[in-house]
Amino acid sequence: MTDRYAPLRQVARDLDVEAVALVPGATFTRVMGQSFGTNERPLVVIVPVDGAPAAIVPQLELQSWALTGFEGEVFDWRDQTGYTGAFEALARAMPLRSLAVEGQVMRVFVHHALARAHPGLRLVDAETQIAGLRLHKTEEEVAALLRANEISEAALGEVLDGVRIGQTEAEIRARLIAALFAHGAEGNAFGPIVLAADNSARAHGHARADYALQDGDALLVDFGAVWGGLNADITRTFFVGHATDEAREVYDLVRRANAVGHEVTKAGATAHDVDDAVMQVLEASPYADHIGSKTGHGLGRDVHEAPYIMRGNHQVLEPGMVFTNEPSLLIAGRFGVRIEDDLLVTEGGNRSLTSFPRDLRVVG
Amino acid sequence: MTDRYAPLRQVARDLDVEAVALVPGATFTRVMGQSFGTNERPLVVIVPVDGAPAAIVPQLELQSWALTGFEGEVFDWRDQTGYTGAFEALARAMPLRSLAVEGQVMRVFVHHALARAHPGLRLVDAETQIAGLRLHKTEEEVAALLRANEISEAALGEVLDGVRIGQTEAEIRARLIAALFAHGAEGNAFGPIVLAADNSARAHGHARADYALQDGDALLVDFGAVWGGLNADITRTFFVGHATDEAREVYDLVRRANAVGHEVTKAGATAHDVDDAVMQVLEASPYADHIGSKTGHGLGRDVHEAPYIMRGNHQVLEPGMVFTNEPSLLIAGRFGVRIEDDLLVTEGGNRSLTSFPRDLRVVG
Repeated sequence: MTDRYAPLRQVARDLDVEAVALVPGATFTRVMGQSFGTNERPLVVIVPVDGAPAAIVPQLELQSWALTGFEGEVFDWRDQTGYTGAFEALARAMPLRSLAVEGQVMRVFVHHALARAHPGLRLVDAETQIAGLRLHKTEEEVAALLRANEISEAALGEVLDGVRIGQTEAEIRARLIAALFAHGAEGNAFGPIVLAADNSARAHGHARADYALQDGDALLVDFGAVWGGLNADITRTFFVGHATDEAREVYDLVRRANAVGHEVTKAGATAHDVDDAVMQVLEASPYADHIGSKTGHGLGRDVHEAPYIMRGNHQVLEPGMVFTNEPSLLIAGRFGVRIEDDLLVTEGGNRSLTSFPRDLRVVG
Repeated sequence: MTDRYAPLRQVARDLDVEAVALVPGATFTRVMGQSFGTNERPLVVIVPVDGAPAAIVPQLELQSWALTGFEGEVFDWRDQTGYTGAFEALARAMPLRSLAVEGQVMRVFVHHALARAHPGLRLVDAETQIAGLRLHKTEEEVAALLRANEISEAALGEVLDGVRIGQTEAEIRARLIAALFAHGAEGNAFGPIVLAADNSARAHGHARADYALQDGDALLVDFGAVWGGLNADITRTFFVGHATDEAREVYDLVRRANAVGHEVTKAGATAHDVDDAVMQVLEASPYADHIGSKTGHGLGRDVHEAPYIMRGNHQVLEPGMVFTNEPSLLIAGRFGVRIEDDLLVTEGGNRSLTSFPRDLRVVG
C-alpha cells in the first residue's frame, strides 16, 4: 500500500528534521484528501520521518475528520477546555526537537503552541520544499484546471455581452460571480477584480460602486473559478466604447509580451528564462517604467504557488508544472492592461489552459 | 487630528513592548481603511508606542497603498529582488527588541523575516488585545452587518422556494451563491455550507454533487453575505418533504436553546453566562451527547472573532458587541440541526440582526 506521507517524510530527511507539520491549506488538502477551514481552532497533522502520524483536531471537526481515513492517533480538544492539553498530549506521545512547516501557511499562534509543548523545538520554514511537492500536477488536477478555465471563460463571455457604458465595476463584478456559479464553479479563486479607467492601473484594486463606465475606459477583469479544488486565474483587458491610439499601443505591447511567454515556455527552460524574455518586450518599449510585475506565479490548489516566474529563479520547468503568464503595463492614474493565461508545461512546449481570445476587444 | 493608531499604541504600552505589527486582515482593514490580500508577498505596518509608523509594502501594491493615506516611511520591495532588504532597511530606521502581533493572522515566514532583521526580537502574541480593539462595532459597522443579514435572508428565501426532492447539495449551494450576489453581496463570508441528511451532522461539511435530496432529509444551510466589509453568518435547518417525529423533537430543542440565547443576551451578562444557559437546555435533553459546539463566536470584519460565547470565558458583554447564537445538535451518521442568528448587544438586552423565521419549515 502506498504511504501518502512518503514525500513529506523525505522532505524531513532531506532537511534533517524529525517531522513535518501540516495545517489546513493546499498541501494539507492534497495529502489528506479533505479540506478544512482556517480559523481560531488549531488543526495540525504531524508526520514523522518514520512511523505513524499524529493529529490535533478540534472536537467539532471529528465527523469531517473521519473522511480523511487518518492512520494515526488523534488528540482532539473542545473549545471550552482549549487546545493546550491536546498539544501537550501529542508531545508526550511524540516529543520533537525539530520540525519542518509551511511558513506561508502556519500562523504564529500554532507555532507558539508547538514551541510550548516541545521545549527547545527548532522550527524550520520548509515552505519551498513542502509546497514544492505540488509542483507537478496530476492528470486529475490538470483536468480540473482546464474545467476551471472553461467555466471562467464561459462566464466572462456571457458577462461581456452585457457590459454597457454607465455600469459600475461592482455591478459587472456581481454579474460575473453569478455567471461563474451558474456555469458550475465551486468557488472563486479570489474575489474577482473588475477595474475600469484609472483604477485598472492598480494591480489588486477593488471594484468601485461609485464609478460609472465611460466611453474610452479600459476595463480589466482578473478572476477565476475553482473547480475540483483547483483554481483558474485569468485576466483580460477590454476597452469600453472605443480604444484610443495610446490604449492600442499599450495593449499591443502587453499582447506581444504574453505571446512571447507562450513561445518560450517549455520543459527545460527556467523560470528566469521565461520572465527575462517576456520582460525584454516591455523593457524595450516606451512604457518600461510602467511594468506591473513579474511574468507570473504557479497555480494549482493555491492561487499563488511555485514556480514563481521571475528573473533570478533558476527553477527548471518540467512537464506538469502550471503557471500564469500575465505581463502587464500599469500607467498610474490613467489605465492598466494585463493579459493572463494559465500554461501547462509539456515535453515539447506548453499547452494554454486558457483560450479566451486575446485580440483587442471593444465592449459596450 | 485623531491618531488612528492610538488604540494600537496603547496595546503596546499595556504589554510593555515597543511596537505593534499589523499584517493584512480584519484589524489591518479597519485601521488602514483599505484591504489587501494574504499571499506570498509580506506587507507589514509597524506602529511604535510613539512616533511615526513604518511599512513594508510590495512594489506592485504601491498604487493601492496610496489609498491608505499612510503617514510614515514605506520600504517597498520587488519580487525579483525579494523582501529581505526591505525588512533590514526598516530595522535600521526602527530597531526593535519587542513587538506585539496578531498570532492568528501573522504567518511564520513573516515572523521569521522580522526575527532575522531585528536580532533578539521578543515577539508577543497579542491576538486577544489587538483583535479586541474590534469588539465594539461602530454604527457604520452595525448598519453593514444588518445589510449583510438582509441580503443573506433575501437570497435564502428565494432559493428555498426552488428546493425540490432530487436536487443535490451542490446545486442548491450554487443557486444560493448566485442569489446572494444578485441581492447585492460583495462576497461570501465563507464558502456556503449546504448539507443534507447524514452530511448535515458535520459541523463544517462540504456540499456533495453526488447526493440527491430525499423525502425526510434534513437540509442545513450555513452561510452569509459580506457587505461593506462586514460578514453575516446565518444558519437555518429545514426538512425536505416531511419531518419525522424525531426530527421535530431535535429541532424543537435547538429552537428552544436558540431562544434562550436571545433571552439571556444583554449588557452585563458574560459570555460564560450565555453559553451556560443555552447549553443547559441541550444538556437536559436526551440528546446531550450530540451537542455540536459552544453557543457562538464574535462576528464583524472576521467571521470568527471575539467574543467567543463559551463557558469559562468571563468576558462581560457590552453594547456594540456582536456574536452568533448558534446552538446545534449533530447526530453523527443521521442528521444535524443548527439555528444561528447574529445578535447585537444593547443596553437593555440585544437586537437580532437576523430575522429569518425560526419555525420548523418543510421545503420541496
